[in-house]
Amino acid sequence: MSEFATAVALSAESGNPTEFAGELGAGWVIGQAVNGGIIKALALAGLRQGVEAAGGHGDPLVASAFFLSAGAPGPARVRTEVLRTGRSMSTGQVSVLQQVDGQEVERLRVVATFGDLSVQSEPVYKATPPPVLPEPDDCLKGDRDSSPHGKPIAILDRLDIRLDPATTGWAWGEPSGQGELRAWIRFADGTEPDLMSLPFFVDAMPPVTFDLGAVGWAPTLELTTHLRAAPAPGWLRIRATTSNVAGGLLEEDVVVWDATDRVVAQSRQLAGVRMPDSAPRT
Amino acid sequence: MSEFATAVALSAESGNPTEFAGELGAGWVIGQAVNGGIIKALALAGLRQGVEAAGGHGDPLVASAFFLSAGAPGPARVRTEVLRTGRSMSTGQVSVLQQVDGQEVERLRVVATFGDLSVQSEPVYKATPPPVLPEPDDCLKGDRDSSPHGKPIAILDRLDIRLDPATTGWAWGEPSGQGELRAWIRFADGTEPDLMSLPFFVDAMPPVTFDLGAVGWAPTLELTTHLRAAPAPGWLRIRATTSNVAGGLLEEDVVVWDATDRVVAQSRQLAGVRMPDSAPRT
Repeated sequence: MSEFATAVALSAESGNPTEFAGELGAGWVIGQAVNGGIIKALALAGLRQGVEAAGGHGDPLVASAFFLSAGAPGPARVRTEVLRTGRSMSTGQVSVLQQVDGQEVERLRVVATFGDLSVQSEPVYKATPPPVLPEPDDCLKGDRDSSPHGKPIAILDRLDIRLDPATTGWAWGEPSGQGELRAWIRFADGTEPDLMSLPFFVDAMPPVTFDLGAVGWAPTLELTTHLRAAPAPGWLRIRATTSNVAGGLLEEDVVVWDATDRVVAQSRQLAGVRMPDSAPRT
Repeated sequence: MSEFATAVALSAESGNPTEFAGELGAGWVIGQAVNGGIIKALALAGLRQGVEAAGGHGDPLVASAFFLSAGAPGPARVRTEVLRTGRSMSTGQVSVLQQVDGQEVERLRVVATFGDLSVQSEPVYKATPPPVLPEPDDCLKGDRDSSPHGKPIAILDRLDIRLDPATTGWAWGEPSGQGELRAWIRFADGTEPDLMSLPFFVDAMPPVTFDLGAVGWAPTLELTTHLRAAPAPGWLRIRATTSNVAGGLLEEDVVVWDATDRVVAQSRQLAGVRMPDSAPRT
């Protein structure tokens, strides 16, 4: 089983298709906290099962995740609720919960609408073309020791990420100030990307705030993901940008293209940021 | 009381700060259905009360709404649940429900995180400048009889909307195909915009799909709104764009500026669209 499949594996309660047991893996942490994207992928894996058990659809088209508290490595409950099953779409809600000092604490709440991308992906009328990147071997490889904070980043053992050096000036103290990162990305264990891994990949880039000179943690408040097509095998390309940084909050937009140049996912998040005192203001 | 204040007015159950009674007004319909933006504004008005009653914060920073069924004019229940109250932010969930044939039917489910924009709006480090528009009196005024379907649009009695004629070729059968609409917008009764009206304004434009030659209804699956500052008095300006139209679905992005050129809100939605057979494909 691939590392990703293991990370999102769930076991159902006997006879209960709405609640599942899973595990937040220690291999997916950044600092002390488990990466939000892998928790969201786990949540959607459970919700997909819950929605399908209720006769609903299997492909997440849009998912909104609210991050309520930081996930810790260890057991987690995935509790689903089906809100509506319709002819072409179904909607459900899911919570990821962990026990803390004998209390159940919610880590993440996701609402998502499911459909059938085999009939909801084509034809393409309008799409953003992918960025032109240097070849992967001419890009900067992220590794577990590449954090600007000096703390190892375990998740970078799971990911093969190659950052366009035109967007990594922050790594040597020269952020561009534009607020843009571009990269090739894939699983380190050779697993090909699939539809259900895209909610993880959209949240796998370093914070775009690094390119604004803010090297602190940028905690996500909310992350919405649109899944538009199942990705072809091969490298994914990702561009992360921000157009709105104010008052300790920023919007971050991500687009993901597959190896055929197809836009397979878009996401937007609102995140917290502590900008350096020297940052220019408008 | 202003038309908008009437539309989002709620009465609480005695002694219950989590559930409210409201009314979906017949004056806010488009065709048969009540506009989704006004239902979302009603939901957030209730959730704000619920969150504040639990000791949480009062300014919605980010809200994600899933549209489950079309709202009809008439009574509605607004049921809230507080998920978390923290030091600087609080998160809650709200459902808007109506009785249909003796059954409670959910129209809308919203999750939102609240904060305090008096300390979370400034300073501005990065923002998109507003589009240059012709003066409002040189723009195309939307009115209740301006639908391409010939059905009256009651909501356009509540709104003063002036569309940039460079983006209204669809009104005379010549859509640009770019997927962009720009407009001035304000309440028709002279009420100044406030923070809690922005979730309505982001969903008040004609569908951006009109500019792609698709004049049918574009039902919203999900709409996420970021509220970044309380608007100054005066006209708002709105730009709606799409970058991704495929398989009967499109992403639509909206930015709202106030009279001081400040970005006060951003939204993104995933919506359904039926493209004309003649539409060019990529």
